[in-house]
Amino acid sequence: MVVSCFKRHGAKGLDTPAFELKEMLTEKCGENFGLIYDLKDQGGELLSLRYDLTVPFARYLAMNKLKKMKRYQVGKVWRRESPTIAQGRYREFCQCDFDIAGQFDPMIPDAECLKIICEILSGLQLGDFLIKVNDRRIIDGIFAVCGVPESKFRAICASMDKLDKMSWKDVRHEMVAKKGLAPEVADQIGDYVKCHGGISLVEQMFQDPRLSQNKQALEGLTDLKLLFEYLTLFGISEKISFDLSLARGLDYYTGVIYEAVLLQTAAKAGEESLNVGSVAAGGRYDELVAMFDPKGHKVPCVGLSIGVERIFYIMEQKMKASGEKVRTTETQVFVATPQKNFLQERLKLIAELWDSGIKAEMLYKNNPKLLTQLHYCENMGIPLVVIIGEQEQKEGVIKLRSVPSREEVAIKRENLVAEIQKRLSES
Amino acid sequence: MVVSCFKRHGAKGLDTPAFELKEMLTEKCGENFGLIYDLKDQGGELLSLRYDLTVPFARYLAMNKLKKMKRYQVGKVWRRESPTIAQGRYREFCQCDFDIAGQFDPMIPDAECLKIICEILSGLQLGDFLIKVNDRRIIDGIFAVCGVPESKFRAICASMDKLDKMSWKDVRHEMVAKKGLAPEVADQIGDYVKCHGGISLVEQMFQDPRLSQNKQALEGLTDLKLLFEYLTLFGISEKISFDLSLARGLDYYTGVIYEAVLLQTAAKAGEESLNVGSVAAGGRYDELVAMFDPKGHKVPCVGLSIGVERIFYIMEQKMKASGEKVRTTETQVFVATPQKNFLQERLKLIAELWDSGIKAEMLYKNNPKLLTQLHYCENMGIPLVVIIGEQEQKEGVIKLRSVPSREEVAIKRENLVAEIQKRLSES
Repeated sequence: MVVSCFKRHGAKGLDTPAFELKEMLTEKCGENFGLIYDLKDQGGELLSLRYDLTVPFARYLAMNKLKKMKRYQVGKVWRRESPTIAQGRYREFCQCDFDIAGQFDPMIPDAECLKIICEILSGLQLGDFLIKVNDRRIIDGIFAVCGVPESKFRAICASMDKLDKMSWKDVRHEMVAKKGLAPEVADQIGDYVKCHGGISLVEQMFQDPRLSQNKQALEGLTDLKLLFEYLTLFGISEKISFDLSLARGLDYYTGVIYEAVLLQTAAKAGEESLNVGSVAAGGRYDELVAMFDPKGHKVPCVGLSIGVERIFYIMEQKMKASGEKVRTTETQVFVATPQKNFLQERLKLIAELWDSGIKAEMLYKNNPKLLTQLHYCENMGIPLVVIIGEQEQKEGVIKLRSVPSREEVAIKRENLVAEIQKRLSES
Repeated sequence: MVVSCFKRHGAKGLDTPAFELKEMLTEKCGENFGLIYDLKDQGGELLSLRYDLTVPFARYLAMNKLKKMKRYQVGKVWRRESPTIAQGRYREFCQCDFDIAGQFDPMIPDAECLKIICEILSGLQLGDFLIKVNDRRIIDGIFAVCGVPESKFRAICASMDKLDKMSWKDVRHEMVAKKGLAPEVADQIGDYVKCHGGISLVEQMFQDPRLSQNKQALEGLTDLKLLFEYLTLFGISEKISFDLSLARGLDYYTGVIYEAVLLQTAAKAGEESLNVGSVAAGGRYDELVAMFDPKGHKVPCVGLSIGVERIFYIMEQKMKASGEKVRTTETQVFVATPQKNFLQERLKLIAELWDSGIKAEMLYKNNPKLLTQLHYCENMGIPLVVIIGEQEQKEGVIKLRSVPSREEVAIKRENLVAEIQKRLSES
């Protein structure tokens, strides 16, 4: 589902190695370097395991001197943090990334990234969702007009990023007590981070007497206004919230940032409330490729990442709640016999089904009982059974049984594959 | 292609972590432990990266006390060996594994594994291929009747495994000079390893006066005879060669082993000869799960592994040779305009295409030139272009252009999606 959406948007698949040079990673990941898994020194370069798919993509672009690329990548990443299984958070997890690299007219690729998130989350039917949007330049502008010293921008931004897990009171405490911010500066930030809304909030911020004097903030607001225009054309603006509390933890973002969250429906009695944090996120990182390029050539990029484990966790919980049973295989037809010594006939028949592209199984027994075979189909949710026995063989037919309805019909052997394909295409 | 074949045979997908406990891996991989990548000790258990997907699968079965499972897995594995890019051999590579675990009647799952290899290699159209088959018990029987001391079985087997890269003369030298085997014993082995053929060779080995006295060899030959019977029913026996020189490097095999090789067609003048070794391999490993189980419960297993990189390498070479161009994206429709200030219309239109499941792209520019847009389609192999301009907008139509034929027709705006879908389904 996710990959087919990426392909629908013209991306090509790219695979990069799990290893990166240790120094490449530690330099680029800011406060997160403690989370990196290093390989043991067994000779050769010092290597680490990638902690996301963005840094390797930027390194790949720089190494291959690529100025433009639209790629998707599905791969594992590793972070040495405490796993919280209840939130679908592990030390090894799978990310699905989509990125657009290249110098283009503003906000067109950015809008496409948000469109993709909407298509994927709608397609997965996870319930209602909201994409929070902000811009790093607006955050920096706010910090500047509130009087945060420039040297503290990144540290204060990292505190702000915790607002989805901590209250403002606690975040304010961290800013003041741990990061040495003046309390009155923190309070001014607090007034801003409370704000969230749609395009009207962007207009409102343009009118803010202090912010409108800040060059960076103005650039961010101008882009956001354009972004909202494009999102309206895409028909998704009602899914987007301009949220001044959104910060995103990673250092490499330079412009628009976003994070999709699922909206909780009021939990029914006895139902566990799902709290999985963000299920998709991303943003613009215009400087990262240049950091890997010996000559510092810039390649502006924007991208998104889908959190597979969290989405699986939610889907599992939903299915548990609804009592739905998930099939783990896709087998369409089971080859059965009521008779002893029919292994040869079964093998010939199943090979014919496989060769016709039909998903088929049989039991690996010389003489299985018919009941065992039918039970297997019911347990596994296999919809069709073909039954071959002495009687059928004499008459040149095969019995075709529907597992749900238990109806059986005799089909001429030579018409069997066509009949199965017809039934499968109808269902 | 590969995964859909695995699903056709009723397997469910399984993902295991890239890390395994270091001790779990080093104990199980015999002579290969020098190839394992270890993680740096950063606190917690000592971890290594998996070097295949078989050992983690066996560990998974034992840990979860599973007695039966048919699973496939596509994942990366890592080995610290010298990469030889010319053979598609890297330190990080992707394996596609299919395994059947459980106690079943003999050779039915084994035959299915060989059928799967045939289906995949035929489906990929890599040219003619052959699957070499042997049995570890026959190898051990040969060693026993030739007079190899039992303590040297594994070491001599490891030498034998090099027969696909080295001549018998060099292998014999290694057996005698490095592994201390008596020259006359090596020569007797040499007489056996020359043999390869079909079912008739199995019959011939049954008549071998020495081998037919060896219990292990007899068991192996009995199973191989049954296997050939099933392969004949599957219609693939002519692809199989009983080859007494096949040994397989890994220690964990206990019965049937196999390895698929592509048959070289006589290289045309100027064409590089492709030598990539085996493209698929596997075998039966009945003892591996028990090694991970605290109580030593056995779960017999048989499986196969497809070497993706090698297959990609061959396909690439073939395409280069034939001058075919590979499309890296699947984009079906490009949204273009000959006019300035048509970004809004383009954005609305492309969102409509995406929402209808059509793979569509446009340039991320406010005012791209029409020629640039059409060139992009030709370069990327995009078959259809929709063109919207002032004229078309007035008339409520959209131009649909076929890139290969350059034919254009005007379609009513409301019929556009249906017309595109019709054209795509026809091509």
